[in-house]
Amino acid sequence: MTEMKPAHETSEAESCGWPITLEEVLAAEKRIRPHLPPTPLRSYGPLNDALGMHVLVKHEHHQPTNAFKVRNGLSVITAMTPSERARGVVAASMGNYGLGLAWAGHRLGVGVTICVPTGVNSDKLTGIRDLGAELMVEGSDFDEATEIMERLVRDRGLYPAHGVNHPQVLAGAGTMTLEILEQATSMGVKLDAMVLGIGGGSQAVGAMTMLRGRGTEVRVHGVQAQGAPTIHDAWQRRKPCTGPPPQTFAEGLATRQTYPLTFDALCAGLAGFHLVDDTALADAMRLIWRTSHQFVEPAGAAGIAALSVLRRELAGQTVGVALTGANVDLATLRRVVDEAI
Amino acid sequence: MTEMKPAHETSEAESCGWPITLEEVLAAEKRIRPHLPPTPLRSYGPLNDALGMHVLVKHEHHQPTNAFKVRNGLSVITAMTPSERARGVVAASMGNYGLGLAWAGHRLGVGVTICVPTGVNSDKLTGIRDLGAELMVEGSDFDEATEIMERLVRDRGLYPAHGVNHPQVLAGAGTMTLEILEQATSMGVKLDAMVLGIGGGSQAVGAMTMLRGRGTEVRVHGVQAQGAPTIHDAWQRRKPCTGPPPQTFAEGLATRQTYPLTFDALCAGLAGFHLVDDTALADAMRLIWRTSHQFVEPAGAAGIAALSVLRRELAGQTVGVALTGANVDLATLRRVVDEAI
Repeated sequence: MTEMKPAHETSEAESCGWPITLEEVLAAEKRIRPHLPPTPLRSYGPLNDALGMHVLVKHEHHQPTNAFKVRNGLSVITAMTPSERARGVVAASMGNYGLGLAWAGHRLGVGVTICVPTGVNSDKLTGIRDLGAELMVEGSDFDEATEIMERLVRDRGLYPAHGVNHPQVLAGAGTMTLEILEQATSMGVKLDAMVLGIGGGSQAVGAMTMLRGRGTEVRVHGVQAQGAPTIHDAWQRRKPCTGPPPQTFAEGLATRQTYPLTFDALCAGLAGFHLVDDTALADAMRLIWRTSHQFVEPAGAAGIAALSVLRRELAGQTVGVALTGANVDLATLRRVVDEAI
Repeated sequence: MTEMKPAHETSEAESCGWPITLEEVLAAEKRIRPHLPPTPLRSYGPLNDALGMHVLVKHEHHQPTNAFKVRNGLSVITAMTPSERARGVVAASMGNYGLGLAWAGHRLGVGVTICVPTGVNSDKLTGIRDLGAELMVEGSDFDEATEIMERLVRDRGLYPAHGVNHPQVLAGAGTMTLEILEQATSMGVKLDAMVLGIGGGSQAVGAMTMLRGRGTEVRVHGVQAQGAPTIHDAWQRRKPCTGPPPQTFAEGLATRQTYPLTFDALCAGLAGFHLVDDTALADAMRLIWRTSHQFVEPAGAAGIAALSVLRRELAGQTVGVALTGANVDLATLRRVVDEAI
């Protein structure tokens, strides 16, 4: 892997190593803003007390699809040309990106097809269908669903909107951190670090693009599930790879390969990368409820779960995390509140 | 009781019977807007399908205190004169109004004292303390907490901010319906009815002030808990009264008397008044989770619970409800998801 410079340290001509520019995030923000008002950034005393730091909590589960990925889907569709829109768009998804793309397509009159593997929670499938998208449930995991997507691109001429390997996905994800920076400023606080869950890495790479582009020195930590550690393990070795099937109840983190568009940037930019097991995720879901009365899905609790691990390293600091989604089904909710996980 | 006319059918001079004017709601909206952006109004296909009507769901649990009552508290404090603010404010509360007033006081530098009876869920008390308010936990129910409040007004000269019997509380509550009307218009839909939980009646009276003031014919239905039916029973008889201690897990609905400022307006304006038992509230909490992934406190599910009762009467109509709050503790959450209620 070659050494990469973050966007702000390179001229536009030199920046080919970093997957997107600050300007692309700013442009995505202009496109999505008419459809998505900023989500709240809040701080909860009892949560701060429990973790021993000042936690700025971004409420991405307040988005219309209850998950941050609507930013990514809307960023892609709003950047498509009229003729691309006319073809319709297709993507593989574990649920939330599919919901986001379906929501954007429904709003802008663009046909959307979502390929999901079997086993994705039925609430998400109902939501995708309810937004008028066509749903293909086929394959045993995300990679197999991606193959179905590629077949539809070939056979039907649909526009491929890969959930990670698409610059507009990363730019859309970066808009969250743009909002956080503006909101922290208006709250009169200065971020020291951000801790972000990594499924494919769009959110972390989007965040680093903003943070470095604005010249901040905010350190970004990544988090994966212990049962889906492929990108974490590859990051440690600085070498892309494909891993075994994920074993975690955090659907949003259940990936098993590195992605070309995000991996080098994660290697170049992350200050640390941590693993949390399902019990730690469930503990974090319960902690979040007790201290803030927000209920999130397992992947949505990854940032807070990692703060327990990072308690000593980040003690007393101001740390941004995102509650990334809340699309958990009632059976999982029950297992979490019953402490069966 | 004398026959009352709604605000828009009377000149200002004649409108002394209706407790607030449309203009007071509009003025409250101007005061609270810099602090509280509008909450989302959304519609969920699976919820509509389950109930057989088009439900517009106002996400008041997205407010910074996770409950609509922050509107009421902020409306009161922003309307106080500088010398009143300097005295500090006191109120009795079952939790959410106290949180709202504490949040407003914290934001505007006004001292706040909240009187709560014993037994209010400790999460709410932690939240009130965390916002810097003084907390007096005394008395066995809301009425006794109100006596403590009155003592503090006498002894300490604090400004009394009664949670129902204060015009600015009703005006603040009315701002929710103002937003709903604007949002429904921008969604291109027309409301037929609203179904609102009634603790003291601020939200319903605020809603009727807006709806009638704007010349709509939207019918407003009230809902109370079967175990706290005092205002419902008094409404049926058109005669104010005090009832037995409330027996419901819906704290926000646990009142046992009529209130002078709201009762006549409820009698004059409500199209219907319904009771739902705790199981119906818990069923509604589960239905809301399944179909929209929002988790609300028992009182916050009152509107949806009543829609099951009103299924036939409102079939096919467009109906507004509010998810009024989400401040439920983990023990109650567990009982609800385990179907122990």
